[in-house]
Amino acid sequence: MAADIEQGRQKLAWAREHMPVHAALRERLGRSRPLAGITLGVCSHVEAKTGVFVETLAAAGAEVVFTGSEPGSSQDDVVAALNEQDGITGYARRGVSEEELEALHLQALDHAPRFILDDAAELTARLVHQRPALLDDFIGMCEQTTTGVQRLQAMARADALPFPAYAVNNTPMKHEFDNIHGTGESSLTNLLLTTNLLLAGKKVVVAGFGDCGLGIAGKARALGARVAITEIEPRQALRAHMAGFEVMPMLEAAAWGEIFITTTGNRDVIRAEHFEAMADGALLANAGHFNVEIDAEALAGLSVEPPHEARPGIMEYRLADGRRLHLVCEGRLVNLATPTAMGHPAEVMDQTFAMQIVAACHLVERAAGLEPGVHPVPDQVDREVAELKLETLGIGLDTLTESQQRFLDAWRDDQIKGA
Amino acid sequence: MAADIEQGRQKLAWAREHMPVHAALRERLGRSRPLAGITLGVCSHVEAKTGVFVETLAAAGAEVVFTGSEPGSSQDDVVAALNEQDGITGYARRGVSEEELEALHLQALDHAPRFILDDAAELTARLVHQRPALLDDFIGMCEQTTTGVQRLQAMARADALPFPAYAVNNTPMKHEFDNIHGTGESSLTNLLLTTNLLLAGKKVVVAGFGDCGLGIAGKARALGARVAITEIEPRQALRAHMAGFEVMPMLEAAAWGEIFITTTGNRDVIRAEHFEAMADGALLANAGHFNVEIDAEALAGLSVEPPHEARPGIMEYRLADGRRLHLVCEGRLVNLATPTAMGHPAEVMDQTFAMQIVAACHLVERAAGLEPGVHPVPDQVDREVAELKLETLGIGLDTLTESQQRFLDAWRDDQIKGA
Amino acid sequence: MAADIEQGRQKLAWAREHMPVHAALRERLGRSRPLAGITLGVCSHVEAKTGVFVETLAAAGAEVVFTGSEPGSSQDDVVAALNEQDGITGYARRGVSEEELEALHLQALDHAPRFILDDAAELTARLVHQRPALLDDFIGMCEQTTTGVQRLQAMARADALPFPAYAVNNTPMKHEFDNIHGTGESSLTNLLLTTNLLLAGKKVVVAGFGDCGLGIAGKARALGARVAITEIEPRQALRAHMAGFEVMPMLEAAAWGEIFITTTGNRDVIRAEHFEAMADGALLANAGHFNVEIDAEALAGLSVEPPHEARPGIMEYRLADGRRLHLVCEGRLVNLATPTAMGHPAEVMDQTFAMQIVAACHLVERAAGLEPGVHPVPDQVDREVAELKLETLGIGLDTLTESQQRFLDAWRDDQIKGA
Amino acid sequence: MAADIEQGRQKLAWAREHMPVHAALRERLGRSRPLAGITLGVCSHVEAKTGVFVETLAAAGAEVVFTGSEPGSSQDDVVAALNEQDGITGYARRGVSEEELEALHLQALDHAPRFILDDAAELTARLVHQRPALLDDFIGMCEQTTTGVQRLQAMARADALPFPAYAVNNTPMKHEFDNIHGTGESSLTNLLLTTNLLLAGKKVVVAGFGDCGLGIAGKARALGARVAITEIEPRQALRAHMAGFEVMPMLEAAAWGEIFITTTGNRDVIRAEHFEAMADGALLANAGHFNVEIDAEALAGLSVEPPHEARPGIMEYRLADGRRLHLVCEGRLVNLATPTAMGHPAEVMDQTFAMQIVAACHLVERAAGLEPGVHPVPDQVDREVAELKLETLGIGLDTLTESQQRFLDAWRDDQIKGA
Repeated sequence: MAADIEQGRQKLAWAREHMPVHAALRERLGRSRPLAGITLGVCSHVEAKTGVFVETLAAAGAEVVFTGSEPGSSQDDVVAALNEQDGITGYARRGVSEEELEALHLQALDHAPRFILDDAAELTARLVHQRPALLDDFIGMCEQTTTGVQRLQAMARADALPFPAYAVNNTPMKHEFDNIHGTGESSLTNLLLTTNLLLAGKKVVVAGFGDCGLGIAGKARALGARVAITEIEPRQALRAHMAGFEVMPMLEAAAWGEIFITTTGNRDVIRAEHFEAMADGALLANAGHFNVEIDAEALAGLSVEPPHEARPGIMEYRLADGRRLHLVCEGRLVNLATPTAMGHPAEVMDQTFAMQIVAACHLVERAAGLEPGVHPVPDQVDREVAELKLETLGIGLDTLTESQQRFLDAWRDDQIKGA
Repeated sequence: MAADIEQGRQKLAWAREHMPVHAALRERLGRSRPLAGITLGVCSHVEAKTGVFVETLAAAGAEVVFTGSEPGSSQDDVVAALNEQDGITGYARRGVSEEELEALHLQALDHAPRFILDDAAELTARLVHQRPALLDDFIGMCEQTTTGVQRLQAMARADALPFPAYAVNNTPMKHEFDNIHGTGESSLTNLLLTTNLLLAGKKVVVAGFGDCGLGIAGKARALGARVAITEIEPRQALRAHMAGFEVMPMLEAAAWGEIFITTTGNRDVIRAEHFEAMADGALLANAGHFNVEIDAEALAGLSVEPPHEARPGIMEYRLADGRRLHLVCEGRLVNLATPTAMGHPAEVMDQTFAMQIVAACHLVERAAGLEPGVHPVPDQVDREVAELKLETLGIGLDTLTESQQRFLDAWRDDQIKGA
Repeated sequence: MAADIEQGRQKLAWAREHMPVHAALRERLGRSRPLAGITLGVCSHVEAKTGVFVETLAAAGAEVVFTGSEPGSSQDDVVAALNEQDGITGYARRGVSEEELEALHLQALDHAPRFILDDAAELTARLVHQRPALLDDFIGMCEQTTTGVQRLQAMARADALPFPAYAVNNTPMKHEFDNIHGTGESSLTNLLLTTNLLLAGKKVVVAGFGDCGLGIAGKARALGARVAITEIEPRQALRAHMAGFEVMPMLEAAAWGEIFITTTGNRDVIRAEHFEAMADGALLANAGHFNVEIDAEALAGLSVEPPHEARPGIMEYRLADGRRLHLVCEGRLVNLATPTAMGHPAEVMDQTFAMQIVAACHLVERAAGLEPGVHPVPDQVDREVAELKLETLGIGLDTLTESQQRFLDAWRDDQIKGA
Repeated sequence: MAADIEQGRQKLAWAREHMPVHAALRERLGRSRPLAGITLGVCSHVEAKTGVFVETLAAAGAEVVFTGSEPGSSQDDVVAALNEQDGITGYARRGVSEEELEALHLQALDHAPRFILDDAAELTARLVHQRPALLDDFIGMCEQTTTGVQRLQAMARADALPFPAYAVNNTPMKHEFDNIHGTGESSLTNLLLTTNLLLAGKKVVVAGFGDCGLGIAGKARALGARVAITEIEPRQALRAHMAGFEVMPMLEAAAWGEIFITTTGNRDVIRAEHFEAMADGALLANAGHFNVEIDAEALAGLSVEPPHEARPGIMEYRLADGRRLHLVCEGRLVNLATPTAMGHPAEVMDQTFAMQIVAACHLVERAAGLEPGVHPVPDQVDREVAELKLETLGIGLDTLTESQQRFLDAWRDDQIKGA
């Protein structure tokens, strides 16, 4: 069936209206065109917000080639509505297999991008591993996920990162907003609509208390759930404890919880020993990038019959003693893979993608002076995006007076107290 | 297109699993069959939870005829999967006009129900107004919504209620759970997924601080929104104020807010003078029963072009000065009429419909002794459903010791302090 | 030591400034003088807010005689500063014994009050029990606490209430504000400052989920505590559950909690079997009216040595196995009896005492037409105080338009939807 | 009047019981005695928790000389009860002038400490400025406040820091717990008890959204206040916005708010132009280290009469137009200088002081290898204290399996997805 291009255009129009930071950037970068002449590879969940991101990169002068970052998260109508625009070429399709996704990625790499804006370092890893010939002219990349930054650091440790990369995910403007609020809200809303269940009164286990876990846990509790946290890091565990959450190991949590959401970026966080401990009806969902956090293979191994669809987006596994465990979207990202999914809210991606764009412009300019490896985005770049965002919100700041500035430089008792 | 009956069965199976109070009632009432021989009319949003409700009434011995309560809120697959069951006949279809809905209601009334379980008093009002001949054998009815109870009271004032009605909505077990948590969660999740917008940081105006308004306002704030309340009742206004909400008249709120949600049960709560004051991009949604709370006609009157779909479920109205206002689902119930809608979560309807069933059994038994008019459900019936629900949750209570019981009866100083 | 009258005047001045509803009443009732010629008995915790209440009653024309409602909760400086005013006579002292309190009450009754504004029905119970001769001229009374209303109902059941009483506590304007916010905030702040402990991360057990329990539990959780509720009433238990609290019987909670706060209005809510189950260091406090909720006698019985002061306001009991349990203020009201205590915040008492005053004026006027017994305060009186309070806050309401008023009276489908 | 030494001992005993991390450290360091032979200067608010900290340092082998960090925050009974212990000498008194405080500091420096554990770098700044001769043998110092770290950085910029300093404040284990929860709870509880006012429904302005501001703002809102934030930093402003707070410049907030709390670490955050805009009755309090955040001199300048005490701990300033502004404790730390003040809760200081102790032991050991200047505490030290704290709480963590550890090192697609 041909993609509904008109519907794709409508989606882009709605996203454009709700991404005011991009509107400001399109205007600003459309004049200065800092990416002119550069072929950019973009890898992400291709839906409307990504589309506006791609459009803005094109407006900044780049030749953009985009592809999807996950088998189930791209939307064909948006892909079509982007492909009709100048300076933009895309290879993405909803519901592809892992092999088809690989083929789409390689098609994108055939355009020989010299810079990549990546999600989970998917396209970058393939470039290094499968298309090393492109590395000669390659400038660098920007990465927007926790998982991707972890992966780039593993690449650097393995001497497999011969160019500079900006850890955009690690900027305050990204992870404190996208992860906490974007992942937080969209994971819960999608989970609730896919299951038609109520959060109030439920026992929810959140694996991991990083920004994603914190966002989900805090918002779930705010809606009336009782929430337990599992952690491997002692400071994270204490943060959760002092914020009023239960903290316990997963084996204990498995027996306690009714809904489980993983946010760790690691594999097999919920595995056979945990499934064994769970109550009938337990619901399992993942909000981390890869679908490896819940060990679905082990779950199938424990089941006495093949899993069957209990509801669109939910597979039911029946264990030997009759207990039923429900896995949401095969453990794929619950805010991107459910039947109702549209990924992060527009305002969040407006901010995250703006960080990617401004960071990319900055890295393109100074790449020559940077060593290969993973670099933090300079704080000034982060601050600049924050100021842009505040402007679109109409929020005013105070500024330091001269005497306040002096006070910050004072240290002697007579300077401070006599001040 | 034929309804997908297999999908309807799947939906019913999921709902059945998540409605443990109904499971307990099916077992209990399946033995005693208190509704044997009675033709019951059920009017509600016909989706899976209503299906389980209908099944349970049939299990209690009733001959059930059901119909939809709203043009857009019934699901054809569930209707089909119910119609194949013994003792159940249904007349409901998704996406009918008001005229078609009326015809479906009259078809249901052709079965001459002697008792009605109603939503917004829809079927009851028609019975009295359009099929008065049925009143002779009519026993009574149970009503589950705020709107419906208001309407029944208006009927009683107009001498148009010649039988006893139970205000099931007014029981604690209904309105403190269904309205606060059910409407609260489902209105927000549906609004967020229909718009793909973020709640964190938004300015939300909630019209009305009854249980529905309180639920929506509290949960919206818990997710990071700033929330203002409008009210006509001084105690409600103070409750909201002391709970930390802004309270202001709608005219002021109109200029302040970004998202507006009505929950008043009245008409024209947002009207021309308010549209005039709103900012570009304002989003308008309704969580009250009827689609009259937002004056869509006045909005169309202010527009310079016919409204167009900005996104599935959202119509955009363009005013003379270029501002665009967005109306969600034509002002119909935001948790039932959006493209993603599935109404209330299963656990909530498990409780609400259980109240309807137990109240109906109680009213059938004692109707002869009751005057016509709107009656409160006896507190003991409410308490009984609460105990049933606690049992399914495995929650234990304390019980009064003898000396505690005596203490509650003491009043003299020497009895209390010497106790 | 003579009371510091200047300090008492200062306290009254501060309270006056923060009780704007009383300011409005003083002006209004100072003109109409509805209580002229009536001797009023006032029984309450005599501190500055009560002082402003007493002053306002005097301004309304009454001859006021006041006394304390609890051995430890009156302040000598405020008593002195009131006693110097015209139309006011008081008998109250801090730190009296139960016998001395009785003597003070009887001194107040010697003035032959014809109307009482009471706290926990203390003065009323004594009047009926110990000074029945006064009943002939007695008009009626107003009661502001849950405990007092329970007690009056016990009196009525025992045929010991030969005059009308208004259950002021039961008005929305009282119990939804005073109990939830006043008791909630002041119980926690006093508990925290008396113990110098942190709430964040603590396990807190709240006995009872009425308005006081709900206020304390909600605010404790909001500050980072994990909170469990114990209840005897199934609807209350479900409310707590759906609001995200743990609900469990006290025996289980005893083993789980670190801090225990009773709010039930009953006796022996925490008793020997519970002390036995508690962990070393458990902290016990009461926020109900009488100091009988925690069975201190049983606690002493379990102890191997006399209790000793672990800190001002905290007694330590050492059990046979070495565990130490800490009882705050001998189980007296934690927001009134601690070393830092000042009772409820001024704004709360402004509202509660205003309800008492307006209700008293109303009852004085219509007492002749009322049967003896406990009566609800007419809703209109409650509404009037709410409007007064909103005025002082500058909060505006919407008002019903004519077509909205008509809509509320409509019930036929054609009236509602064609409207 | 002689200090009540018995009362001081009681306070220490209570604090000891509620500081389990110190108990563990006393045992561990009492064996290894890593500070043996070193004279340590301790500067802090000398009350019971500081006493337990001092005792633990002595148990670790140090010769401890302590002094107060603020004129109003030391308690004479605790000072006396410490001074009777071996290895501990103290110079601190409540209610001293700035000159007397200086003299006490110099007395402490007369003991020639070789290491300092400081609060706001008070003692360290004096050492450098007034006793430079001691610098030759000086090892280094640990600083626990935001203000102190700022000051040390100013010293370093001014070439006035010739030894290594650990920024203990900057560790997660300090600032995320002490600042957010300790300052948050204790500032609000002290403010509420000093004023006898209610937070629910109030308009509160918090200046600064660092950890202290975030803690106070979040907890104030949780108790029912409406909260506005002022900021100079765009990311902080956005964090506050997305968390649902109002964000506005102080000039606007001045006209809006009822209660103002400063937490910025800067001077004159509220100054003449802001006082001019405030409403009658505005309440001003400071939760930052120095009493310079609210410009009290300017406030006095605007007043038409000398300020008078409106209530213990609260001075009233009357402006020309009759408005009254209320300043709490002369703008000193609201959680330390009010009549009810006891500083941070015990559990918080248990953690903060434990960080100081473990960091000090670590710095003593490696000081020779460190450049002069401000250094971060190694993450491993922070983690060690976190593990100790979790142990005392009985909270368990998960640990990485081998395959999870490998997963974190993987980056190639075939490694991750085939894993």
